[in-house]
Amino acid sequence: MLKKLEITSKFLKQVSTLIKSREQAAIIKIFLEIHPADIAEIIENLNDDEGQYIFEILESQKSADTIIELEDEIRDNFLSELSPKEIAEDLIEKLESDDAVDIISDLSEDKKNKVLTYIEDKSQYNNITDLLSYDTNTAGGLMAKELIKVNENWSTVECLAEMRKQAKRIKKVHTIYIIDNNNILLGLLSLRNLLVSEKSTPIKSIIKKDIISVKSYEKKEVVANIMNKYDLVVLPVVDKNNKLLGRITIDDVIDYVKEDAEKDYQMASGISEDIESNDNIFELTRARLPWLIIGMVGGILGAKIIGVFDLENNFELAFFIPLIAAMGGNVGVQSAAIVVQGLANNNLQSNNISNKLIREFGVGLLNGIICSIIILFVTIILGFSFALSITVSISLLSVIIFAAIFGTFIPLILNKNNIDPALATGPFITTVNDILGLIIYFSIGQAIL
Amino acid sequence: MLKKLEITSKFLKQVSTLIKSREQAAIIKIFLEIHPADIAEIIENLNDDEGQYIFEILESQKSADTIIELEDEIRDNFLSELSPKEIAEDLIEKLESDDAVDIISDLSEDKKNKVLTYIEDKSQYNNITDLLSYDTNTAGGLMAKELIKVNENWSTVECLAEMRKQAKRIKKVHTIYIIDNNNILLGLLSLRNLLVSEKSTPIKSIIKKDIISVKSYEKKEVVANIMNKYDLVVLPVVDKNNKLLGRITIDDVIDYVKEDAEKDYQMASGISEDIESNDNIFELTRARLPWLIIGMVGGILGAKIIGVFDLENNFELAFFIPLIAAMGGNVGVQSAAIVVQGLANNNLQSNNISNKLIREFGVGLLNGIICSIIILFVTIILGFSFALSITVSISLLSVIIFAAIFGTFIPLILNKNNIDPALATGPFITTVNDILGLIIYFSIGQAIL
Repeated sequence: MLKKLEITSKFLKQVSTLIKSREQAAIIKIFLEIHPADIAEIIENLNDDEGQYIFEILESQKSADTIIELEDEIRDNFLSELSPKEIAEDLIEKLESDDAVDIISDLSEDKKNKVLTYIEDKSQYNNITDLLSYDTNTAGGLMAKELIKVNENWSTVECLAEMRKQAKRIKKVHTIYIIDNNNILLGLLSLRNLLVSEKSTPIKSIIKKDIISVKSYEKKEVVANIMNKYDLVVLPVVDKNNKLLGRITIDDVIDYVKEDAEKDYQMASGISEDIESNDNIFELTRARLPWLIIGMVGGILGAKIIGVFDLENNFELAFFIPLIAAMGGNVGVQSAAIVVQGLANNNLQSNNISNKLIREFGVGLLNGIICSIIILFVTIILGFSFALSITVSISLLSVIIFAAIFGTFIPLILNKNNIDPALATGPFITTVNDILGLIIYFSIGQAIL
Repeated sequence: MLKKLEITSKFLKQVSTLIKSREQAAIIKIFLEIHPADIAEIIENLNDDEGQYIFEILESQKSADTIIELEDEIRDNFLSELSPKEIAEDLIEKLESDDAVDIISDLSEDKKNKVLTYIEDKSQYNNITDLLSYDTNTAGGLMAKELIKVNENWSTVECLAEMRKQAKRIKKVHTIYIIDNNNILLGLLSLRNLLVSEKSTPIKSIIKKDIISVKSYEKKEVVANIMNKYDLVVLPVVDKNNKLLGRITIDDVIDYVKEDAEKDYQMASGISEDIESNDNIFELTRARLPWLIIGMVGGILGAKIIGVFDLENNFELAFFIPLIAAMGGNVGVQSAAIVVQGLANNNLQSNNISNKLIREFGVGLLNGIICSIIILFVTIILGFSFALSITVSISLLSVIIFAAIFGTFIPLILNKNNIDPALATGPFITTVNDILGLIIYFSIGQAIL
């Protein structure tokens, strides 16, 4: 009985010890009871050689189920150790078509073609070559070909026999689709209806027609929004004529939803690539350096701007540079984040964008007034000169309002030009607001002091 | 046939016009064909009175299905217009137990008790009072009671009859659970096995025993991790003796996964409450002001720190205040974000935290060296004095390394003390790094200049 497993460091040490003494039988016995998702996690927590050893001694179906759960880097390592024939026979032929395609897509063009020639199961070969023809960012690229379909004109007895036959080749039956003679999707046969109806009922009379489907060329994010909105566990994919092509299951979409939310978060935090905390130093550095360089360019520009003003005779102005810069950045990021999430969740209709700007101006004004009153009193109490206090207070109000509007506007413009609006949050907007904040602050300061 | 719907502003205007002329029949006809999730979205895009009108004329099952899809605020408005009797009869009795509990939990204690007295369906009443006893943050709080279960000792004929009976009361059949005489969960009867086996097969022989379940007291996030990791669409909930209590479906968990990722993003962006871009100005202001005040406190501290040093005679030091502050903040947020995501995805084992700190130090060192070399050359080329260039370069190196370590450490410490580590990203860490960066910069500057 497969169970969920708590992977402790004690357990990992036991496994390491067994590997060192090459106790193959004992290891196989342990792993027999472990879910592939857990085996993958164990392998990721062992060193490369130990992981490779485990992967090699796994029974073929289990190693196929495990490899699709592994992190890309480790998976690629394992694949590079296998011949095209091994990949075809031990992995590809044991997997459902969508997972098989994920593996094949990771290979070089040359190795991919070799693997294809070794696939003996004709229907798997056809499924894979068909799936490879779709753009990976579309519904077609997400779908699997395995599904159960019955013809509306069949009798119940025919259907049951056919369903049994089809189910034997499929791991998990999600839904039974009903098609016409031309493979056009008509509806589905729900498990509930199947259970509730008597055996003699004709298929046509128990068809559930309110079925939501997606066209093969629609984007991943459309698929995710549809499945999420309508609470669907499986979504049929059709071509432009409604011919049934395949189906997408929710687990593939969850990964996408999660990655998408994480990507926004990483962008907002100034990390440019998809990295994980376990990646190596050079990958981590490469993902972070671009944003730091933007920050440096901003800092150097800031130095030049400050240099333009007569700081020598108004050196107290320097005291509040950090305050002005920080507040501009904070407000800008807040405004941008709200817009980015609104866009991601599809609850920003383009017809209410002007409302949005007005509201954002209102929020900026309110926050700005509150903050500038606080700062005026605090600076006076702390003994800064009245002129400086007034300068800081007025500058802060202007910077906050400006940053709020700017932070709202930039992601909307990026989105309109089909650039990921999340780019606008994080270091980019902080840097721009820093600079604009400095210009506003010193201009007001120069005028007042 | 229900279809997915593109909600355009043209369509919304048509609906508004129909509402104005009170064309009830026409409206009902339109909404007959629309999915409750879309009706909810339409209501959210109309004004309050129009939304209320639509909700009132919907047929009862449809209004029940729609209300669970609505945003909290609008839902609460609608509920406040209904009497306890209407809520019980028109909504609660038409919903599955988990959704019914969501509605009831939104009511005041007083109204809740009144609604309960009006629930006539005995089994729904029992389901709801049972579910209300669980903590909403646990598996018990997420589950629904509706499920199909059969006894391992039953004959196939008995099972099919019983399954049909149970299925009639349930909207969507996900899985059929197999229990013993004491209601202990033994396994499940997969649709696939049901299809593949002959009618005379005894239940016991086709039981699928490798079933993953969750205890009712386990936390929401544990549930989400399990369903995500093992690609589960439905997860049975048991008590500590493995008695079957209910089941959780993936759609409830997706919402949670999404909200959780969004919450981290909002925190990183300095937004303290769950708000949406459509909320009103005061809610938006309240969610953002706390972080701005933290930023102001940091800015004032920064002013005091700069005041301590002899800026008057070294006023050029002020030129690079924005650079140092920005870089400290950027690096700190990057480091913290990686740790926060690692913690959220459960791939940070506590046994490799020291590795993590060493690696983060390495990344900081590498980024720091690259940035400080670049800044040294650029400042010299731009004509800043050599002493100032050296000061900025050394300070930048120190600040980057320090911020990287600090950014890694803080979320780990927060997490260890059961505080949400996402608090560490965003304005908090930026502000702290600003101040520390200033101290490092001016100390080095004072020593060199």
